[in-house]
Amino acid sequence: MAILGELGTQVLIPVAGVIGIVFAVAQWVIVSKVKVTPGAANASGAGKNGYGDYLIEEEEGLNDHNVVVKCAEIQTAISEGATSFLFTMYQYVGFFMVIFAGLIFVFLGSIEGFSTKGQPCTYSQGKTCKPALYTALFSTAAFLLGAITSLVSGFLGMKIATYANARTTLEARKGVGKAFITAFRSGAVMGFLLSSSGLVVLYITINVFKLYYGDDWEGLFESITGYGLGGSSMALFGRVGGGIYTKAADVGADLVGKVERNIPEDDPRNPAVIADNVGDNVGDIAGMGSDLFGSYAESSCAALVVASISSFGINHDFTAMCYPLLVSSVGIIVCLLTTLFATDFFEIKAANEIEPALKKQLIISTALMTVGVAIISWLALPAKFTIFNFGAQKEVANWGLFFCVGIGLWAGLIIGFVTEYYTSNAYSPVQDVADSCRTGAATNVIFGLALGYKSVIIPIFAIAVSIYVSFSIAAMYGIAMAALGMLSTMATGLAIDAYGPISDNAGGIAEMAGMSHRIRERTDALDAAGNTTAAIGKGFAIGSAALVSLALFGAFVSRAGVQVVDVLSPKVFIGLLVGAMLPYWFSAMTMKSVGSAALKMVEEVRRQFNTIPGLMEGTAKPDYATCVKISTDASIKEMIPPGALVMLTPLIVGTLFGVETLSGVLAGALVSGVQIAISASNTGGAWDNAKKYIEAGNSDHARSLGPKGSDCHKAAIIGDTIGDPLKDTSGPSLNILIKLMAVESLVFAPFFATYGGVLFKYL
Amino acid sequence: MAILGELGTQVLIPVAGVIGIVFAVAQWVIVSKVKVTPGAANASGAGKNGYGDYLIEEEEGLNDHNVVVKCAEIQTAISEGATSFLFTMYQYVGFFMVIFAGLIFVFLGSIEGFSTKGQPCTYSQGKTCKPALYTALFSTAAFLLGAITSLVSGFLGMKIATYANARTTLEARKGVGKAFITAFRSGAVMGFLLSSSGLVVLYITINVFKLYYGDDWEGLFESITGYGLGGSSMALFGRVGGGIYTKAADVGADLVGKVERNIPEDDPRNPAVIADNVGDNVGDIAGMGSDLFGSYAESSCAALVVASISSFGINHDFTAMCYPLLVSSVGIIVCLLTTLFATDFFEIKAANEIEPALKKQLIISTALMTVGVAIISWLALPAKFTIFNFGAQKEVANWGLFFCVGIGLWAGLIIGFVTEYYTSNAYSPVQDVADSCRTGAATNVIFGLALGYKSVIIPIFAIAVSIYVSFSIAAMYGIAMAALGMLSTMATGLAIDAYGPISDNAGGIAEMAGMSHRIRERTDALDAAGNTTAAIGKGFAIGSAALVSLALFGAFVSRAGVQVVDVLSPKVFIGLLVGAMLPYWFSAMTMKSVGSAALKMVEEVRRQFNTIPGLMEGTAKPDYATCVKISTDASIKEMIPPGALVMLTPLIVGTLFGVETLSGVLAGALVSGVQIAISASNTGGAWDNAKKYIEAGNSDHARSLGPKGSDCHKAAIIGDTIGDPLKDTSGPSLNILIKLMAVESLVFAPFFATYGGVLFKYL
Repeated sequence: MAILGELGTQVLIPVAGVIGIVFAVAQWVIVSKVKVTPGAANASGAGKNGYGDYLIEEEEGLNDHNVVVKCAEIQTAISEGATSFLFTMYQYVGFFMVIFAGLIFVFLGSIEGFSTKGQPCTYSQGKTCKPALYTALFSTAAFLLGAITSLVSGFLGMKIATYANARTTLEARKGVGKAFITAFRSGAVMGFLLSSSGLVVLYITINVFKLYYGDDWEGLFESITGYGLGGSSMALFGRVGGGIYTKAADVGADLVGKVERNIPEDDPRNPAVIADNVGDNVGDIAGMGSDLFGSYAESSCAALVVASISSFGINHDFTAMCYPLLVSSVGIIVCLLTTLFATDFFEIKAANEIEPALKKQLIISTALMTVGVAIISWLALPAKFTIFNFGAQKEVANWGLFFCVGIGLWAGLIIGFVTEYYTSNAYSPVQDVADSCRTGAATNVIFGLALGYKSVIIPIFAIAVSIYVSFSIAAMYGIAMAALGMLSTMATGLAIDAYGPISDNAGGIAEMAGMSHRIRERTDALDAAGNTTAAIGKGFAIGSAALVSLALFGAFVSRAGVQVVDVLSPKVFIGLLVGAMLPYWFSAMTMKSVGSAALKMVEEVRRQFNTIPGLMEGTAKPDYATCVKISTDASIKEMIPPGALVMLTPLIVGTLFGVETLSGVLAGALVSGVQIAISASNTGGAWDNAKKYIEAGNSDHARSLGPKGSDCHKAAIIGDTIGDPLKDTSGPSLNILIKLMAVESLVFAPFFATYGGVLFKYL
Repeated sequence: MAILGELGTQVLIPVAGVIGIVFAVAQWVIVSKVKVTPGAANASGAGKNGYGDYLIEEEEGLNDHNVVVKCAEIQTAISEGATSFLFTMYQYVGFFMVIFAGLIFVFLGSIEGFSTKGQPCTYSQGKTCKPALYTALFSTAAFLLGAITSLVSGFLGMKIATYANARTTLEARKGVGKAFITAFRSGAVMGFLLSSSGLVVLYITINVFKLYYGDDWEGLFESITGYGLGGSSMALFGRVGGGIYTKAADVGADLVGKVERNIPEDDPRNPAVIADNVGDNVGDIAGMGSDLFGSYAESSCAALVVASISSFGINHDFTAMCYPLLVSSVGIIVCLLTTLFATDFFEIKAANEIEPALKKQLIISTALMTVGVAIISWLALPAKFTIFNFGAQKEVANWGLFFCVGIGLWAGLIIGFVTEYYTSNAYSPVQDVADSCRTGAATNVIFGLALGYKSVIIPIFAIAVSIYVSFSIAAMYGIAMAALGMLSTMATGLAIDAYGPISDNAGGIAEMAGMSHRIRERTDALDAAGNTTAAIGKGFAIGSAALVSLALFGAFVSRAGVQVVDVLSPKVFIGLLVGAMLPYWFSAMTMKSVGSAALKMVEEVRRQFNTIPGLMEGTAKPDYATCVKISTDASIKEMIPPGALVMLTPLIVGTLFGVETLSGVLAGALVSGVQIAISASNTGGAWDNAKKYIEAGNSDHARSLGPKGSDCHKAAIIGDTIGDPLKDTSGPSLNILIKLMAVESLVFAPFFATYGGVLFKYL
């Protein structure tokens, strides 16, 4: 039927994946040419320190070996702190994963009473499907595979980022363009590695599972959903634990350092400074990586599970079945081309070119991807086919799916731009917030909260239109494909995203290594652009999470055999109401966790300043390790209650109240969580950039509010500190809340459909 | 069928209403015995100033005529400011009401093409109902009647409060008990006047409309729904306009007075001080009065419209039909008895007895009302009857309705207590927030936000359980009755509520009149208890709004002929998503309005301090009138966009997208708005009381954070200021958003069902 045959598909997907991985390695090799070992740099080219083009731009202290040694030391400290935190976290999470894997096996295996006999298929009439026991086994395996892939993705991202930060600092000596390219290339390593490995592992898993399942595609793709659950469970702990870690350190460091002691950010005298820099890597890099990997895995699983009971699956059309993976494959190639625009086709010469260059990445990748999707839809899909739509089959044309993917892709771009408008200090919203600092912190907070609330409007309309169009065209499959469309340029999105914390760290290292004011200015310019792109990345992550979660919700009701989720039924309505409350409960926990951990950090930092003689004068070294330990311990301890809330809610609701109430809970959490997540991220981003706007003082208006240390600036710092847990802990963790509850419900759907609703049955 | 005949019903309701009004007048007479004209007081009893029992407690400055004159002056200024604001607002709102009344008439009249011919009834088979044109006319009349009753309620409440505030101050000279009883009696005047007049007007309207409608009860109660819409529309502008007024003045006064000039709250040198006190009356009193009147009118209408198409209406059982009104009648009698416990049976001797006394009011009224509901359910209802349930009829027993009303009643009490726990500084949550001020304003805000989010959990479960139980028993009628149950003790609730701002004003007047520190301490004690009860009142208002709104939603779908609101339909889902966004949009507008208006106020106050010589020294008088004008102008101008958002959304969505999407919007706004409303109110209340906790310094812990002017206290003030718009503008206005959109949809339901969904029809 389709132009692209099965063989072509079997070649194209792994080839695209391998190309992505090779490209990532190539970028890594280029970054690694920047040496952080002074001796080696000397040996290789007598102080050239890089490509040997040190004469092109103004260069500073290139031959100062002390600086290089210091940078290397700091980098090692950050890297060790991050590694040690992640390993500690993995121990706890690993323990949890094993237990949860056992739960999956027992719950799903029990559906047919652990029978090893095949059962008649639900959708392919007249055929026999594999027994539930084996599907339980394969689901468990897929779950563990997803968790491990997510873990490796996050860990590698962190490793790359900590590898790149000092190198970015060193390159900043040569000029802002060189520093930008180093940070961006490192981001690209992470982006491509993550999106390619996600694709390749999923592809291999499908092929391996197929050896057992053969023609039983219902069971095959049912078990594959475990992959999404594993990816997202890992991401939950990464986001929450990492988020608490980074903000406890950041808030604690700022409250004593900036506010009480009046020393600059990232000052080496501040005992929490290493913990703060470690936090950027474990929260913003490893957490974000796991999160987006989870979204990718989940939307692929949601699309596959719906496709398996549509004509693709029933007719065993492998190429069309793999359409979601093919879209991702095209995405990798498109992002590769897009990256070249930033790294090779153009050059950054001044600080104000950074933000436009990053924005151009988004536009180029979206435009190219639109063409790519059109081509692959034409090649891989039959002209006409049917898609499962809650009990019925709906006829769809191949260009229809092109529209679904395309609308997701462009909605993502719109969300990105709206986010930029509300969080970049180049536009009036952030400038208004900065201006409100004139009357103190209170008005700053009031205006910031109002800005966050307002920033929700357009993204919600963009998501609503995407949902309506893609659903009208191809039911829940359409929504899953819209989500994949939004995520198809993930490699570029992640590169931009990871660029932010790397630049942030580079600035920290420059400060700690005592480099000159000029270099710090360059890294600050990189960092300011990074703040905006971080907000864009979060907007993107939330938008795609909403679509993914809806697609998973659709897949869940399909598998649970629910035909209608009627708001007018009290079972559903109370679910909706309680579901809408869950994001608040969850945010209460995470915010309070950050607050409590920050208080502990504040006490420790104060203690060190008070008891270590010569610390303020810079003659004695602070005890960084204790602060790192406080962040580690607090985040490990505090991530458990919110984690339990998210993981247990679907199990408890499904088992006690049944699939109808659970449907209500999922819908409620989705529609309420999206709003809080977007507003929290943007409020935080706006406060951060309002502060940076005053600090930079690039306009008459900005100068009238400054300088650093003025009352306005102090008010802005308070806003920034409040925004920290909102934008880096609660907000982004909510993505995972809405996705994870949905994918967990999907995996356990057959169990809930069989045994769920105990409470209502016996009342 | 029922024990109570039609005649009994026709007697009982107006008698209860009249008793309530008489009781209110009696309380007013007692309050009026406190003279604010020094000459008259002298004449009546030579300085006795009251009941003539001035020898009982320690008395202070009773013979100081200057103080009395000053109090009278300030009272007049406040009263004039409030009256002038309300009249300005009424002009704008009156204009709007006339236009909207026209819209109602045209939209509803057009359903049958303005035909004057009777049509076959929808539910009473074989009968002929009155033409839509006349129902449009009566709906319009009911709308205007509801608006006027709401307006009068709010206005009278404000008048009583401004009448009582100086009297409370003067009584505070005699002791805290005397002051408490004056404030509480005044609150009772408002509570009883409002609940009785709401009942009596509704009762008369039904009887008058019946003269035309005769046996056509479908049309009769359809037109009565306009009463709810009118009440709530008026409440919207009262809440939003009043909310912006009060907080612009409060925030503006505090930012310059407390923070910059370091003068106490309510200091007469502060130019915004009169505006601030006016604000308490127009926002917290008039706004709250209109709001609760709206809830009462709406839940009665929702119950009546469902009853009219149930067996009560079809069999023309007038007593059972009036069950909602009978419950309210019993409520008035119960509240009357409850009030006596506070005013006559017990006496307050010390400040720490105030909060328990107010809490006792809630418990006593709830307990007595439970008995009252049992009796009236037994008297007024047939043993068995059927209730309309989305197309089918459901059999219900009379004790079933008792459970519905009872669960609403007790859920209200639970919400009240949870709110108290989270906002009173007697418990750990507020103390933790106060403690977090040690590390500055940022941690204070983080902890406060987390507290607000957390405080949502139990109220939502309480509402969810009420919904599930009452819905399971008697479908949407059950939910409407649960809402009425929660509101049945409204007279007591409002008395407690109104007590707060009266005490707040009394404190302000004491400060401005230069009364002694001891008297100010007494009014502060009254005020602190008032803060907590204000939060309880808000929790109550939000909880009942959620139930009312759901009941209205049910009535809307019934009248629009919708059988199922399926979340899995894209039309509904996008409605749900956008609906959940509306409270954010609305809050963004109201928060920003308060912020902008406060900035203007700050500029004016600063200008006066800088340009009026001798103002800080107290030798020159500030220009209060300009500040009053700034608040008035800002609130009138700023209330229009959020008002338009709420009023236009149902019309636009219903007309363009149809009843399914509108159902989604209503459900989404309900489940999302309730959460923000509760968390915003409680966060604000907690910050306010955390500040008061530090100021009062009643424990070792509190003293370690104080005294006034310490860094901790400054951080607490910032939190308090941020909380102002959250707890007094955005939060409470959201109640109205969710109720008003639902009642408006209900009124326009026949129009949307006939002509709605233009966009989807032509796409």
